[in-house]
Amino acid sequence: MNYSELLKNIYEEVKGLPLEGKVASYIPQLANVSADKFGMSLLTVDGKEYKVGDTDENFSIQSISKVFTLTHVMSLVGETIWERIGVEPSGNSFNSIVQLEYENGIPRNPFINAGALVMADLLVSKLNDPKKDFLEFVRKISGNKNIEYNLAVAKSEKETGFMNASLVNMLKSRGNIHNKVEDVLDFYFHQCSIEMTCKDLANSFLLFANQGKCAHLQDQIISGSQVKRISALMLSCGFYDESGEFAYKVGLPGKSGVGGGIVAVQPQKYSVAVWSPKLNKKGNSSLGMKALELLTTKTGMSIF
Amino acid sequence: MNYSELLKNIYEEVKGLPLEGKVASYIPQLANVSADKFGMSLLTVDGKEYKVGDTDENFSIQSISKVFTLTHVMSLVGETIWERIGVEPSGNSFNSIVQLEYENGIPRNPFINAGALVMADLLVSKLNDPKKDFLEFVRKISGNKNIEYNLAVAKSEKETGFMNASLVNMLKSRGNIHNKVEDVLDFYFHQCSIEMTCKDLANSFLLFANQGKCAHLQDQIISGSQVKRISALMLSCGFYDESGEFAYKVGLPGKSGVGGGIVAVQPQKYSVAVWSPKLNKKGNSSLGMKALELLTTKTGMSIF
Amino acid sequence: MNYSELLKNIYEEVKGLPLEGKVASYIPQLANVSADKFGMSLLTVDGKEYKVGDTDENFSIQSISKVFTLTHVMSLVGETIWERIGVEPSGNSFNSIVQLEYENGIPRNPFINAGALVMADLLVSKLNDPKKDFLEFVRKISGNKNIEYNLAVAKSEKETGFMNASLVNMLKSRGNIHNKVEDVLDFYFHQCSIEMTCKDLANSFLLFANQGKCAHLQDQIISGSQVKRISALMLSCGFYDESGEFAYKVGLPGKSGVGGGIVAVQPQKYSVAVWSPKLNKKGNSSLGMKALELLTTKTGMSIF
Amino acid sequence: MNYSELLKNIYEEVKGLPLEGKVASYIPQLANVSADKFGMSLLTVDGKEYKVGDTDENFSIQSISKVFTLTHVMSLVGETIWERIGVEPSGNSFNSIVQLEYENGIPRNPFINAGALVMADLLVSKLNDPKKDFLEFVRKISGNKNIEYNLAVAKSEKETGFMNASLVNMLKSRGNIHNKVEDVLDFYFHQCSIEMTCKDLANSFLLFANQGKCAHLQDQIISGSQVKRISALMLSCGFYDESGEFAYKVGLPGKSGVGGGIVAVQPQKYSVAVWSPKLNKKGNSSLGMKALELLTTKTGMSIF
Repeated sequence: MNYSELLKNIYEEVKGLPLEGKVASYIPQLANVSADKFGMSLLTVDGKEYKVGDTDENFSIQSISKVFTLTHVMSLVGETIWERIGVEPSGNSFNSIVQLEYENGIPRNPFINAGALVMADLLVSKLNDPKKDFLEFVRKISGNKNIEYNLAVAKSEKETGFMNASLVNMLKSRGNIHNKVEDVLDFYFHQCSIEMTCKDLANSFLLFANQGKCAHLQDQIISGSQVKRISALMLSCGFYDESGEFAYKVGLPGKSGVGGGIVAVQPQKYSVAVWSPKLNKKGNSSLGMKALELLTTKTGMSIF
Repeated sequence: MNYSELLKNIYEEVKGLPLEGKVASYIPQLANVSADKFGMSLLTVDGKEYKVGDTDENFSIQSISKVFTLTHVMSLVGETIWERIGVEPSGNSFNSIVQLEYENGIPRNPFINAGALVMADLLVSKLNDPKKDFLEFVRKISGNKNIEYNLAVAKSEKETGFMNASLVNMLKSRGNIHNKVEDVLDFYFHQCSIEMTCKDLANSFLLFANQGKCAHLQDQIISGSQVKRISALMLSCGFYDESGEFAYKVGLPGKSGVGGGIVAVQPQKYSVAVWSPKLNKKGNSSLGMKALELLTTKTGMSIF
Repeated sequence: MNYSELLKNIYEEVKGLPLEGKVASYIPQLANVSADKFGMSLLTVDGKEYKVGDTDENFSIQSISKVFTLTHVMSLVGETIWERIGVEPSGNSFNSIVQLEYENGIPRNPFINAGALVMADLLVSKLNDPKKDFLEFVRKISGNKNIEYNLAVAKSEKETGFMNASLVNMLKSRGNIHNKVEDVLDFYFHQCSIEMTCKDLANSFLLFANQGKCAHLQDQIISGSQVKRISALMLSCGFYDESGEFAYKVGLPGKSGVGGGIVAVQPQKYSVAVWSPKLNKKGNSSLGMKALELLTTKTGMSIF
Repeated sequence: MNYSELLKNIYEEVKGLPLEGKVASYIPQLANVSADKFGMSLLTVDGKEYKVGDTDENFSIQSISKVFTLTHVMSLVGETIWERIGVEPSGNSFNSIVQLEYENGIPRNPFINAGALVMADLLVSKLNDPKKDFLEFVRKISGNKNIEYNLAVAKSEKETGFMNASLVNMLKSRGNIHNKVEDVLDFYFHQCSIEMTCKDLANSFLLFANQGKCAHLQDQIISGSQVKRISALMLSCGFYDESGEFAYKVGLPGKSGVGGGIVAVQPQKYSVAVWSPKLNKKGNSSLGMKALELLTTKTGMSIF
């Protein structure tokens, strides 16, 4: 497969499309991003890199960070995580608090906000210096020691994150948060504020295409079975209320964030990260979705 | 009507009943109350007092305070309160957060916790020194200058009140809390911690039997129309999931609290307060309910 | 109280108001009613009749019939009805099926459609010739032997009543319907199709103002305690999502129907029926609500 | 891959396991099946058949039929089906009616009962002789002309299927059923009553592994894109509340039925059908799940 040519074609096709949707604007730091940025990085399991556009520019990874916390939690506590979080699609918008009320504070899956908050609580419990240690983990799997939290973003999220504060307090009232509410929220808002490039994201997701091993490391980060679990969750729950649509149009496990990033994985083959800040109505990058749809259509390869 | 004889008969009948249910135990200060306390005070609009049992003993008024905040808010902002709170029964248990999600953060009525939190926010906005001023209001309508917050109760509520913290954050996320979440919760936990006697409560509720005027004051606290509004709300929403049952068995507007107190009003006739700490499954005082049922059965008078 | 003068004043005031809202149009028979009809009948417990406007004209009583089925069921099975229906406000729009799913097929109260369907099932079980016997009961308490079902209305309701068919099937799946679904729906659509005049309705509701006795009969139809139960339910659940508003503005137990009728009761004093076909957004007669509000405002009498 | 050996090993391992769970018993015809039946058929895209156990015995395919109706509908109306049914996981148990109420009668996906009923309605509209034509379609894609409805099963389902009657009436009330409720239910209960063998099922699902073509036919039944859509839906919604679990443990698109059958597909490789009547708590065949988990574990092949 000539991925180099392919990415170039996708880039040209996508650049010709109208820029639809809206840049996330609930905090100023996200609202100020240039709407016309576009980058796409693809990394194969045999170590080849392909890229097009703004692939070396940092952006806010937001909910993509949930895949990193899930990976980190599973590497630390293994399957016991499922005592506190479910593995089924939620069928509701990503902030829904209704389900928690009827299911006793057990979030349906790790990628809805409630699930991510329970994972944050687990990491606050397990790590010596939670924010520092988790950042090290992300640096390690991405192979980039310069990755940082954006403290201004974390601060803004905190000042406006009342829905997350509502969720974490409800989880606490049901006994599914063990640390202080403030500490869990502080960790969560930091994890979402991490800034990475398309290249960093492709690098860090390669382990899901590579049975749990980073390309640039000898270490097995998680087991092949854990890769399967996380991939299955990404496929059914990675795109909020558009997960079914993504599974059909793209046909790869992946995860999006409101910063406009999407990362996906073709098992045994490659990881791919794309970034375009304008979001469709379901909160996923419009052009990012389109670019990945073109990728699997043009290659004729998806998991189906 | 010989209320003196009547209260004596009720007292004897109730004292012969088994002490069923449980004292509220979610904070130590409530759990430590003697379960066998019982008091009942009745005050007629023409100024006569009747009492039996432990009517001069302080207890935690808890949700009964919601009637005081509603009265205070209505005296300050009038009907504009209904832009931010509904007047319909909720049909759900008193903490339900589901309804808020589907109705854009407008609580169904002032007596569910969400509604009480919006009232707390209104008072924090309107009063110069919210906790001090509100306490003065309660002292004024009850005619007892010694009424105080129980600071230990307020502190304990704060330390365990995650469900209320969840609610207030959700309301804030929908724009229906204008002050800081911490300030609203602080006010709310204080209002619930107020300690009063049966006598104080009967005194302070007399205005609802007396077209808005306290017996011991010349002032019109609220208008006759506002009395009607508050009474209608007490009748349909004053007893959590047991409001319909209370309306039938007792047939008076009233309000209960998990401290074991219940206050009710026979319009144009009397106010009555009863206290017995053991709660039934719906969270209302078991013997308090029974005593009031005996009162309206024996007098043959209810609003129906 | 000069009710004659009073009704005349109300009539003039109401007639001067703009005719707002919409006539129910889900079946042709209701849509074809003249929008400008207005009638009001008041009947005191000492047997005096007052009336103004179109009080001798038949209209479709619709949901007002639920009060008659409740009365009939209670006269037949007493308190055992509460094993299959609750007594608490529902807090949801009148067709809501959600609550049933979470509460195992026990409708929250007799006046939501699900509750009315369970009552229909009870009458189908208890009566020899259900439709004939129930009609006789309505004729008896209203004192009018000419009252009839409108068979065309019943037929139309059946042809379009899919939401009621959905409810009754769900109740059946939870074991709370004992007869054939078709028989229950047939009975229900007939009961709603009954046509009565304001005069008939005031006559038939007088028993709720008169401790269970019809003015024109010696018989005790139901006990005083049952009157209290039904009145309490009317007050908190008689007006769909506007019950709280009605309790405040009018302050009487009552029941409305989408045919534009409303009946209310001042305990120990009078029953009153009003009819005006245009409905407000909550499905209650706009001018009917207004007329009753004027009645209790002008008399200064409500239950509060 | 030596599938012959593999199936033999799986058979032996599964036969040594305790027979846990319960045979579906809501109708007598399902309850009477021998609990110890077990069959497994695997069919590769290059036409090789492998089998073990009771693979030539008929059983009730139940919800597996939803994949056939979806395939048939898509072959008839293409993508317009998505105007009336969604493609997102439901996150609720398979009969939930709540979601319909909040989403205006559009079922979340074709595999919940509400979605299947809308598909049944579409087929009743599109086919000349719906039950006959649909049966012919199933016979065609399975290559077995002797497949039949079990009329006793269809009759029993009809007599007890109140929840489905509730759903279809609600859908009708929202305008998402165009034919008579009775006709839609009749079609639906028949489609679920179809009896097939493991061999038949593997044959008929091969088209999903083979880009839309049956192995035994020249015809393209549906397009490659439609295969992808159906596979994505099976993966995220094929196993009720256990879809996430199946995606992880087995990692193949598939569909189960309460008759104890499960069919799954390894794209480009094979289809596989397994049958064991005892169901786990989520309503999926216990040993069927286990057998498929062993299959993908032993082959090391899943879609992830």
